[in-house]
Amino acid sequence: MASSFGERLRVSVFGESHGTGIGAVIDGLPAGFPIDTDRLMRFMERRQGGRNALSTSRKEPDVPRFISGVTDGKTNGFPLCLEIANTNTRSGDYSNLADCPRPSHADYTAGVKWNGKADMRGGGHFSGRLTAPLCAAGGIAKQILSSRGIEIGAHLRSVGSVQDDPFPLFPDAALFAEIAEKAFPVISDVQGEAMQNEILAAKEALDSVGGTVECAVTGLPAGLGDPMFDGVENRLARVLFGIPAVKGVEFGDGFALSEMRGSQANDPFCIDGSGRILTKTNHSGGILGGITTGMPLRFRVGIKPTPSIAQPQETVSLSERKNTVLEIKGRHDPCIVQRAVPVIEAAAALVILDLLTADAQLAEKENHDGFTGYSDRA
Amino acid sequence: MASSFGERLRVSVFGESHGTGIGAVIDGLPAGFPIDTDRLMRFMERRQGGRNALSTSRKEPDVPRFISGVTDGKTNGFPLCLEIANTNTRSGDYSNLADCPRPSHADYTAGVKWNGKADMRGGGHFSGRLTAPLCAAGGIAKQILSSRGIEIGAHLRSVGSVQDDPFPLFPDAALFAEIAEKAFPVISDVQGEAMQNEILAAKEALDSVGGTVECAVTGLPAGLGDPMFDGVENRLARVLFGIPAVKGVEFGDGFALSEMRGSQANDPFCIDGSGRILTKTNHSGGILGGITTGMPLRFRVGIKPTPSIAQPQETVSLSERKNTVLEIKGRHDPCIVQRAVPVIEAAAALVILDLLTADAQLAEKENHDGFTGYSDRA
Amino acid sequence: MASSFGERLRVSVFGESHGTGIGAVIDGLPAGFPIDTDRLMRFMERRQGGRNALSTSRKEPDVPRFISGVTDGKTNGFPLCLEIANTNTRSGDYSNLADCPRPSHADYTAGVKWNGKADMRGGGHFSGRLTAPLCAAGGIAKQILSSRGIEIGAHLRSVGSVQDDPFPLFPDAALFAEIAEKAFPVISDVQGEAMQNEILAAKEALDSVGGTVECAVTGLPAGLGDPMFDGVENRLARVLFGIPAVKGVEFGDGFALSEMRGSQANDPFCIDGSGRILTKTNHSGGILGGITTGMPLRFRVGIKPTPSIAQPQETVSLSERKNTVLEIKGRHDPCIVQRAVPVIEAAAALVILDLLTADAQLAEKENHDGFTGYSDRA
Amino acid sequence: MASSFGERLRVSVFGESHGTGIGAVIDGLPAGFPIDTDRLMRFMERRQGGRNALSTSRKEPDVPRFISGVTDGKTNGFPLCLEIANTNTRSGDYSNLADCPRPSHADYTAGVKWNGKADMRGGGHFSGRLTAPLCAAGGIAKQILSSRGIEIGAHLRSVGSVQDDPFPLFPDAALFAEIAEKAFPVISDVQGEAMQNEILAAKEALDSVGGTVECAVTGLPAGLGDPMFDGVENRLARVLFGIPAVKGVEFGDGFALSEMRGSQANDPFCIDGSGRILTKTNHSGGILGGITTGMPLRFRVGIKPTPSIAQPQETVSLSERKNTVLEIKGRHDPCIVQRAVPVIEAAAALVILDLLTADAQLAEKENHDGFTGYSDRA
Repeated sequence: MASSFGERLRVSVFGESHGTGIGAVIDGLPAGFPIDTDRLMRFMERRQGGRNALSTSRKEPDVPRFISGVTDGKTNGFPLCLEIANTNTRSGDYSNLADCPRPSHADYTAGVKWNGKADMRGGGHFSGRLTAPLCAAGGIAKQILSSRGIEIGAHLRSVGSVQDDPFPLFPDAALFAEIAEKAFPVISDVQGEAMQNEILAAKEALDSVGGTVECAVTGLPAGLGDPMFDGVENRLARVLFGIPAVKGVEFGDGFALSEMRGSQANDPFCIDGSGRILTKTNHSGGILGGITTGMPLRFRVGIKPTPSIAQPQETVSLSERKNTVLEIKGRHDPCIVQRAVPVIEAAAALVILDLLTADAQLAEKENHDGFTGYSDRA
Repeated sequence: MASSFGERLRVSVFGESHGTGIGAVIDGLPAGFPIDTDRLMRFMERRQGGRNALSTSRKEPDVPRFISGVTDGKTNGFPLCLEIANTNTRSGDYSNLADCPRPSHADYTAGVKWNGKADMRGGGHFSGRLTAPLCAAGGIAKQILSSRGIEIGAHLRSVGSVQDDPFPLFPDAALFAEIAEKAFPVISDVQGEAMQNEILAAKEALDSVGGTVECAVTGLPAGLGDPMFDGVENRLARVLFGIPAVKGVEFGDGFALSEMRGSQANDPFCIDGSGRILTKTNHSGGILGGITTGMPLRFRVGIKPTPSIAQPQETVSLSERKNTVLEIKGRHDPCIVQRAVPVIEAAAALVILDLLTADAQLAEKENHDGFTGYSDRA
Repeated sequence: MASSFGERLRVSVFGESHGTGIGAVIDGLPAGFPIDTDRLMRFMERRQGGRNALSTSRKEPDVPRFISGVTDGKTNGFPLCLEIANTNTRSGDYSNLADCPRPSHADYTAGVKWNGKADMRGGGHFSGRLTAPLCAAGGIAKQILSSRGIEIGAHLRSVGSVQDDPFPLFPDAALFAEIAEKAFPVISDVQGEAMQNEILAAKEALDSVGGTVECAVTGLPAGLGDPMFDGVENRLARVLFGIPAVKGVEFGDGFALSEMRGSQANDPFCIDGSGRILTKTNHSGGILGGITTGMPLRFRVGIKPTPSIAQPQETVSLSERKNTVLEIKGRHDPCIVQRAVPVIEAAAALVILDLLTADAQLAEKENHDGFTGYSDRA
Repeated sequence: MASSFGERLRVSVFGESHGTGIGAVIDGLPAGFPIDTDRLMRFMERRQGGRNALSTSRKEPDVPRFISGVTDGKTNGFPLCLEIANTNTRSGDYSNLADCPRPSHADYTAGVKWNGKADMRGGGHFSGRLTAPLCAAGGIAKQILSSRGIEIGAHLRSVGSVQDDPFPLFPDAALFAEIAEKAFPVISDVQGEAMQNEILAAKEALDSVGGTVECAVTGLPAGLGDPMFDGVENRLARVLFGIPAVKGVEFGDGFALSEMRGSQANDPFCIDGSGRILTKTNHSGGILGGITTGMPLRFRVGIKPTPSIAQPQETVSLSERKNTVLEIKGRHDPCIVQRAVPVIEAAAALVILDLLTADAQLAEKENHDGFTGYSDRA
């Protein structure tokens, strides 16, 4: 529980911001898959800070070392453990936070939960740094999915009030690749420019700013997901809320659906030129009843502004039990949303690969007869 | 998996819309708790249709029969199984849906997943009717929580574009009770009137409309919830997306946080007159790092319009593999959001009671020494 | 947890000996399977008491009523809930047991665990009666497995010191059927006679007697089971110890292996006439490293004597906190081992079907290419 | 799943015999516990080979490196990852095993399961070497339990046909410590001598020999464990069968109970001089209905002879699909039972600490009122 998830592809994340290392164990990967480590490093670099004025100055190479599960560059069927060393920690910066919890950080709640005994330097196990092993695990899952025709992409949908264009009805691998190569992962570079200005403005004001990420998955078979509490939405939401600063998750048009009429929100079924069943629109985000339709899976994640800001903030001293004012030092991002983009792709990849691994009935069906009478791929 | 959830308080939901009965098994309830069945029935009636022009004309008493787990009106420590009979089913209405899937329903995805062999009459196991046993289970959990000083309330936060007032910073049991007694569960009756007009307008247009529900939980100890993937947010989101038509979940200010600066979004800590630690604002919804702060837990759920509408809709015939037009008959709500209100309370109650049941370290702490140095109750 | 098990085929058992009813929910069955209810009743009758001098005089028809999951006699893809009514309870017999716990029953431990608030009349949720719904669930699983060429059989391997013949190296469906039809399920009727005499002798001495059950599963594919803690042995053992009075579980030659040399215990591989890979012996019981070899799965379960005996026994009065003597009234079996035989088959069926349902990689392999280079069926 | 277990104290084991390293992640440890690393090393040395003629000549220091979860020598509340480097591997020895599976090893079944793509050199993830991280994790759990008055000990109960004395009715920490300090962990050194002769005789015959281990846990509260499928027996059995070569598990007198009458097997309750409730005998091994009685928990594990023996053995060539003869090279123990002793203690410690961590109701009871009216500690 807690720092692990998955049914048959089980991921356990470990580590603290200022400990020896961070990492993950992934149990349930298929055997014999060749991991493209260059591609994995490029994926992981997308979440890395320190590249420009928009991010923290903390730089760490974040190269995963495979302790187990990989033989001669291929998965070997057994739990894959990867470690990423912590090499660039400056603990002194966090010395008084144990007594004066930072507003809207986990300092206070972790303090209560573990009676002050948790190692919360740099946010401890709650640090955004823990998304690095999640990315490494998810990057491997993405490669496996890609080899099966399933592609995952995400972009900054908004920063503050600046919006990027949404994904088209049928995003494709080329679009995903184009976005992934950008230093600032948006569809419209004009809007991306405006977003970066928003971030720099926040930074100059010793402040931070939030945003949203839109993610899509293409090439999914229809019929993936379980009823009620184990649908694609349930599983994804559980994992996405495990990414620091995520405060909202919606599928398809999400909250906007609550303002629509049924006649607008419903997605009519139709048959395309090659006889496949599609929906004309995709307000549902490719999921009905928790189960995939075969249309692109599409969801959006809302991320709060980095709680660490350089302005003085009101808090309390736990030891003196009185109100006080805190000034946070250390290196912090004025916006973390752009760094969350690959993390969200990684989470999606792990959830989807788990579902494909766990569903023997689906596997039988795919092999035996395909989805005759139904669309299988959008 | 699938139709069950919970760590030590485990809930399994069973039944189909047109089968013999529906129900739930709840394993892990404390022993010796006297169930107030009148109170439970009043709670369940809040989700029931057929009371006015806003709801479906299908009326069923929905009285849960306890098969096990209850002796002399008290929980007896063992799994509680409750059954609700299906007495008012008109299967004929659904005869052609197996071939022509209703847009934005689970007909199609369930058809693919189970190769057409699932009993999807009336939506089958995906029917909104399955929220009745969830309400029964959650109604019992609510009573247990209430006996421990934890109260749960919810209201219609919006219907279409009409908004209700939000919960105040500190909602209390009196407010929850006041809302629960209303036929239309809102804070502002003026806004409630406007919402009902919105629903009636949709109905007249042979259409439906969506909305949102805001829910709050008070009296929670600080320190409840586990890191990463088992925080309060993760667990709640997983269950909430199991309620039919839910397409978005957000905590605290949720997606609105993504448009804020950190200086606006952060909740400053402070000490109140009686020495307790609070936050001055509650943009975080009472959760930081997945763990409760002791402030009220607050979240919002986005619900799509009822997909069953009386207007002709485009769909496909699976057998003839061609486009066609569908007219849905049967009894359907022009808006289901008001009926979802107690269901969301029920889900919250079950998740919170599970967390309290599972966390032995928290239990020890509460008993041994309280949260010295910290606020325990808001 | 607690009263449920399974990964993708999830079984939850509910009920108490003296409550309204007992039953089970089975989530994850394949859709469209026609349940042969006559066959199911015949299977369930095998565990039923009251047929002869060897069993308790409590007679109940134990006909499962399907509340959900079955449409027109076929599984419908959704959780199957079945209820068996409790019709023949005489609670008066158990009145003083709450104060004076019966030796080697769960009265005392349940009393401590639930502070005396559990309904322990007739053993409550710990009663052997709760094996009826397990049999019903497992009986359905057996039928599904049988349709896939997997057969399960069991027999009384010993009662007291009297031994039945062991299963041969390759037991088959005919042998299983022959045993199942016997009123006293043994291979050698001569030994069965001696066992029955042993039971009657115990009964006359106001005593009870224990025994062992041997179970075998044939037709399993090789490669089923997961490493370490989720192998076939691990999963089976967890469920088998959930059957009342089970105190030992061993696979293949089990404890006898501990007295052997490796050269005796090892099973040499060989290729049979049709090119399949077998082992010449099966000391390992068809499992190596937790994973099936394709040889028959074989295990043995040790069952203690019924703790309820008519002789006076020493115990304590909890209220008076002093030593006392207890005379147990009520109806009890001098031996329950023969009734446990179908229960053990049922447990095996559910565990095996779960494994087959959960293993998508196995499913893909079976369909794509079979086990070329390996034996697939023994 | 697979290589992990536990409800709230979750253990994941990773690594292969010939990979970079092996290790474990333990999620759910209490925060602030000081790990005595000297004591931990002494515990781990008990399972280590290479010390005398009875064990393999492979020597590795097996010092766990803490990657996370430990700060300043204390647990910090977050998942503890420990790695043990693989430094002494000679892969050449295993070169032809991929084609010619060793009898009664997992080579064949793993080959089938992963289509020959698993890294099975040295047994891969199935190697006895993987018990090292289990010991490290369990050694930490043992220290935590010991600080709460719960002690765990085990000894070689038999090797081949040579039996050690059984544990007395009330084993204590002094006895456990005395056994743990012996190079050959038995109660009777005379019998230990005979066992060692048995092992040496097997070695000289190029053979191996099996045995059994008896384990006891003292100081447990009564009332620990959940009904049916999550009792102490169920949980322990699931983990114990994860230890390589374990083929049988029994609790209390186990299989011997099946040969007893109820009047012999039942444990009479009584009140001792200080008013505590005990049982006069402990045939049940301290567990009734899956729940602890407060008497010592006692169980026995049957272990098969090491399957790797130096004698030529019959097997098949998978590539040539014909019968052949195999001679196993490499370093192997003529008996592994003595090395399994601390591994079984470790498994018990992890299962017990998990149960104590997961049971909030028990925790509340212990703190609020103790077990008035019941014995709490033996």
